[in-house]
Amino acid sequence: MVGGGAIGLGIAWRLSQRGRDVLVLDRAEPGSGASYHAAGMLAPITEATFGEDTLLRLNLASAAAYPAFLRDLAAATGRSLQSDAPGTLFVALDRDQVEALERLYEFQRGLGLAVEWLRGSRCRELEPALHPAVRAGIGAVEKEVDPRALTAALGCAVAAAGGRVRSGAEVAGLLWTGDHITGVVLTTGEEIAAPSVVLAAGCWSGGIAGVPKEVADAVRPVKGQILRLRPRPGEALPIRHLLRTEDVYLVPRSSPMRGDEIVVGATVEEQGFDTSLTGGGVYELLRAAIDVVPGVREMELAEASAGLRPGSRDNAPLLGPVGPPLGPRLDGGGPAGLVVATGHHRNGILLTPVTADAIASVVCEGVVPEAIAPFRPDRFARACC
Amino acid sequence: MVGGGAIGLGIAWRLSQRGRDVLVLDRAEPGSGASYHAAGMLAPITEATFGEDTLLRLNLASAAAYPAFLRDLAAATGRSLQSDAPGTLFVALDRDQVEALERLYEFQRGLGLAVEWLRGSRCRELEPALHPAVRAGIGAVEKEVDPRALTAALGCAVAAAGGRVRSGAEVAGLLWTGDHITGVVLTTGEEIAAPSVVLAAGCWSGGIAGVPKEVADAVRPVKGQILRLRPRPGEALPIRHLLRTEDVYLVPRSSPMRGDEIVVGATVEEQGFDTSLTGGGVYELLRAAIDVVPGVREMELAEASAGLRPGSRDNAPLLGPVGPPLGPRLDGGGPAGLVVATGHHRNGILLTPVTADAIASVVCEGVVPEAIAPFRPDRFARACC
Repeated sequence: MVGGGAIGLGIAWRLSQRGRDVLVLDRAEPGSGASYHAAGMLAPITEATFGEDTLLRLNLASAAAYPAFLRDLAAATGRSLQSDAPGTLFVALDRDQVEALERLYEFQRGLGLAVEWLRGSRCRELEPALHPAVRAGIGAVEKEVDPRALTAALGCAVAAAGGRVRSGAEVAGLLWTGDHITGVVLTTGEEIAAPSVVLAAGCWSGGIAGVPKEVADAVRPVKGQILRLRPRPGEALPIRHLLRTEDVYLVPRSSPMRGDEIVVGATVEEQGFDTSLTGGGVYELLRAAIDVVPGVREMELAEASAGLRPGSRDNAPLLGPVGPPLGPRLDGGGPAGLVVATGHHRNGILLTPVTADAIASVVCEGVVPEAIAPFRPDRFARACC
Repeated sequence: MVGGGAIGLGIAWRLSQRGRDVLVLDRAEPGSGASYHAAGMLAPITEATFGEDTLLRLNLASAAAYPAFLRDLAAATGRSLQSDAPGTLFVALDRDQVEALERLYEFQRGLGLAVEWLRGSRCRELEPALHPAVRAGIGAVEKEVDPRALTAALGCAVAAAGGRVRSGAEVAGLLWTGDHITGVVLTTGEEIAAPSVVLAAGCWSGGIAGVPKEVADAVRPVKGQILRLRPRPGEALPIRHLLRTEDVYLVPRSSPMRGDEIVVGATVEEQGFDTSLTGGGVYELLRAAIDVVPGVREMELAEASAGLRPGSRDNAPLLGPVGPPLGPRLDGGGPAGLVVATGHHRNGILLTPVTADAIASVVCEGVVPEAIAPFRPDRFARACC
């Protein structure tokens, strides 16, 4: 397993549960990459975008799998990560935003999604801290999970199931014998043999030698700046719902690790591997958050950080074997033994359950589950340019 | 010496140079209090405010003393802190701001200050990075100094002159024998004897037992949130002048310790000893900075912090003996041996040279120099309520 983010640890846990001998290699600390910065919205409905219907179905399937996934995780680790968010409100602050929200609502209804149109007064009834300018909103039942608590719990679950995790183990390249993968080599020169390698290295997946070019070229870093705010001492969180506008989202949370917080995110920037905060990035996040919840002004700005999402060419993940990992070749192409699980972009935390289960099936049974069939990692090689 | 900020270290240096046996006690690390957060504008002219003429004279005297003070410091330590800022531009972005700036200009001219009225086009000639909306400005020859480099150099200068500095030595109270001070007691219970005690503990001065009530009651913490931004790699600072609007100041600097930066400050808040950053504080600083220099958006937000200025009832410092420290009593009141140097509010870095020299004269010669006579620390006790 190359990569110890939510995706890599989730797969490692499921593989360990099935009796596989799993070693997770992380270039830094497990959970310190994109997962560390992620907000943890489980928002397949309000994240739905025109033209991404296939991805929507995967997102919905993973959101549906989340409660059972978290129950399993609680049973394995004793850590409960259940969210008590009452749902998402996607609100509009002016006439232009209302019109855009109406179009989104019609689109969502057309897809059969469970969304409710709410007048401004109803939005403010549900969330009294909303700015009085809120004119309308869409309501949807969605949850959240604390990504840092998730990766911490997954790390424990991997260990409890007999898997191993190595920090500071940066993979320089894949080792091949003919067209079969035989392991990996670290930047230190150490070679580690393995019959199967799962590539879950997020935005760094493309920089590993021996990764097929069509996979390496499809993944890139997409920078996101994100803020965490805390109530002042003695104060409660001003909001209960996940809130969105077209500019920002706010995720209220009582974190088991950090107490009450609101996560405000996130910029989407093409800046290569740069992870610096910028004046404009932090400004726009605060502006958009204060515009919708003025009480954010009084909160403590506890953390500002920037992470790198693993973006892909079509914003959907790359999932599955490049060649058949254990069984007979399924698609006739690519080398054997490499399984890819990267390119999750904005949806890595959401897609952890479905990815973990599907990739475990690929590795253990040599079959590609229907759910991930549209996301084969070599799809860009075959696309007509 | 109670307090190792710029003021305390400056006095300690001058006293050590005069052969006094000096011990500086700092509750944390020297230079880690208000001096650590300060922007370091040496701006007596553009800081001039209606109704504070007496303070203005002290500020001007200290600004005039700065070049020689820094030359002395460079000779003592080998560290050059010369500023190459070409001056301050105080600019107006809309009609209301132009009108306010015109009133300020007339006030400054009435005081005989060297200020120049600049049209918007001239402001943009001087600083091409200014927002095109800038309509007018006041120009003044003012400098800056890096407060962190200043306290570091002063610490070396104290040591070079034979003085001693103790970190983590929090003074709980002053020790008196009758009406004469005999030393201090630390929070650990350790007693330290001294024939003179200089109180330069900033906003913490009021919390030390045995400080006369009229002094203790006059000093309070005034919170300031402040940002430091860096150019992106390979980029230069977008501005050369110190810039001000009625909402914000920007201090460009090539710091000997941190490289190129712009300091953006600062909020002025009555929040007691709270030093948290807030969503609204950081937002307003970024907004005001971007309004005047849009290029701030592209800069890296390298640091956000909050410090506590030692505010006083009239925004002017408390300077001088409470009783005569060494010579005969000068004013007939208060106990002997305590000398106060606190309450510098927004002007601590600017006032370091004049404070250091004047307080050294008080301690060594028992005389109160004319420059600080209006700022006697017991002035609030005698004010009619």
